[in-house]
Amino acid sequence: MRATLLEDGGKIALREFPDPVVQRPTDAVVRVTASCICGSDLHPYRGKTPSVFPKRIGHEFVEDIGDQVDTVRPGDVVVAPFLISCGACRYCRAGLQTSCENGSVWGTDDGSGARSDACQGDLIRAPLADGTLVRVGTELPDALLPDVLALSDVMGAGHHAAVSAGVGPGSTVVVVGDGAVGLCAVLAARRLGAERVVAMSRTPSRQKLAAEFGATDIVAGRGAEGIAQVRELLGDGADAVLECVGSQESLEQAAAVAHPGGRLGCVGAPLGNLPLGPLFMKNVRLAGEVAPVRAYLPELLDDVLAGRVRPGRIFDLELPLDEVAEGYRAMDERRAIKVLLRP
Amino acid sequence: MRATLLEDGGKIALREFPDPVVQRPTDAVVRVTASCICGSDLHPYRGKTPSVFPKRIGHEFVEDIGDQVDTVRPGDVVVAPFLISCGACRYCRAGLQTSCENGSVWGTDDGSGARSDACQGDLIRAPLADGTLVRVGTELPDALLPDVLALSDVMGAGHHAAVSAGVGPGSTVVVVGDGAVGLCAVLAARRLGAERVVAMSRTPSRQKLAAEFGATDIVAGRGAEGIAQVRELLGDGADAVLECVGSQESLEQAAAVAHPGGRLGCVGAPLGNLPLGPLFMKNVRLAGEVAPVRAYLPELLDDVLAGRVRPGRIFDLELPLDEVAEGYRAMDERRAIKVLLRP
Repeated sequence: MRATLLEDGGKIALREFPDPVVQRPTDAVVRVTASCICGSDLHPYRGKTPSVFPKRIGHEFVEDIGDQVDTVRPGDVVVAPFLISCGACRYCRAGLQTSCENGSVWGTDDGSGARSDACQGDLIRAPLADGTLVRVGTELPDALLPDVLALSDVMGAGHHAAVSAGVGPGSTVVVVGDGAVGLCAVLAARRLGAERVVAMSRTPSRQKLAAEFGATDIVAGRGAEGIAQVRELLGDGADAVLECVGSQESLEQAAAVAHPGGRLGCVGAPLGNLPLGPLFMKNVRLAGEVAPVRAYLPELLDDVLAGRVRPGRIFDLELPLDEVAEGYRAMDERRAIKVLLRP
Repeated sequence: MRATLLEDGGKIALREFPDPVVQRPTDAVVRVTASCICGSDLHPYRGKTPSVFPKRIGHEFVEDIGDQVDTVRPGDVVVAPFLISCGACRYCRAGLQTSCENGSVWGTDDGSGARSDACQGDLIRAPLADGTLVRVGTELPDALLPDVLALSDVMGAGHHAAVSAGVGPGSTVVVVGDGAVGLCAVLAARRLGAERVVAMSRTPSRQKLAAEFGATDIVAGRGAEGIAQVRELLGDGADAVLECVGSQESLEQAAAVAHPGGRLGCVGAPLGNLPLGPLFMKNVRLAGEVAPVRAYLPELLDDVLAGRVRPGRIFDLELPLDEVAEGYRAMDERRAIKVLLRP
């Protein structure tokens, strides 16, 4: 089978490997029908995160074959979040599968000494299948595949930002970041009843999708200019600010557009440090961070299968797996919001 | 009348000024019967905060004369928090008087172009008296004076840390910082029902007071050693961590001793930046910051007047006002936890 590797020098390559097999009774072997490239995959690609060896990269997929576990069966269509979790420990039971005591990251040691596979390939061995995989059904209409795939990461992350920032009916919200997570955060905020959602974006195609996802206002400015534009719309600032970038600049921008007593929901990979001064004087609360997508999947899946939300619209480029390297380039150069790969 | 000045070169001096008078109908003129030195007063004293001119410094007091306002009358004993607030704007009504739209800091322009007084002196003009001052009664037994005085800042701040971190019945709590605020945070956490409170302190006199305030465990280590000692006691960490210092080191320590999904209540003046990485992976929430002491005063005052909590024990040095400079030295050199000044 083929799997994607990040090799020395930042080269993305599709290489041949032996097919995975069930190694532990809790494993499933899953054939990948669709996967995608995540914004966080770009960090090692760009060399911002140390990557000590070529590894199979990618962490989102929709599957069709399972084995020897209770909740999925051979032939089932499944979706998996970007982390492996047992479903049974105290953190999993509390809905914080990202802190699972037995969990691991796709493509790393699964706790048994064996490395799990990552999803930008043909097949994967999924450890702790009952705790990790979510059964979609025995089939999935192709039109819904992108929507389900979006639940494996970006829609769950946007939802986590909104939940963490306490978005509810009537909320006034600012979304910082117009990547796939930021756009999903717009959709998630509206789904939770937000009355006003200001999307900060300066790219026309992303502004358009933000509006389709329910943004009521678009602010194109950044830095001080962007902050002034939000203030013009919202006065003191927003009830909830969804920070979906993680850079120093975006964290500072998010802190600046929350009103006193407001809340930040942060899900951007935090490359920056947060200067606490601006939050301190305003009593702005901070929550969020790495999204327990597995906890949200069943609820969001219901809405997707019923056609109530369509997060799959964030996929604006579909490529065959053997063009995975072009997918990375397109996202790195911001030519694509998010890339869907089909083996 | 006399008032304390921070003069160029970091010198604390008691100087003569004309007595304050009522300038606006919402003012009260108040005779100071007791004030104290705050840890935050040490920042300009140590030159860590820019101080552009000699200013009257200090922000805590208990009073005896009011004028021309509804809620306090000449002869009343009052207590005031460390910020001036109107009591009527949306933030005051929401219990966030620290973000009052008409508020100001003692010793600065009160919004009318006139500077208010600060409290380490004989008399003050208190702007927005109804919104700022809290009536204690027509008299206050001397034994309770330190307890009431503690409510003007440090006990309210410790309480805010505990409230912000969601401390409630059965909570497991770690308090980082053994200054007056940290010690009051121990007391506040127990008052709110915490079952286990670990105080991080390496000074015997402060450890003793922490235990008197209800700490169930004392951890003397700092940095990696302190974190390891907390983990030994609490496993994954605490439900709630009350950060009462604000330095880079203490913020990092606080983040490290919260369990996944835990909460930080931060009330240390934030001199540091918070590295979000350690919080990110654990979904630790952050709240707190500058304490809306005015909001908590009535509730805490009830408990103090009934003798249910005795935060005044944090005052371990009492000096006459004309020895104010010695008071600053004693706190700066950590010879005193907190200094009470009497004109």
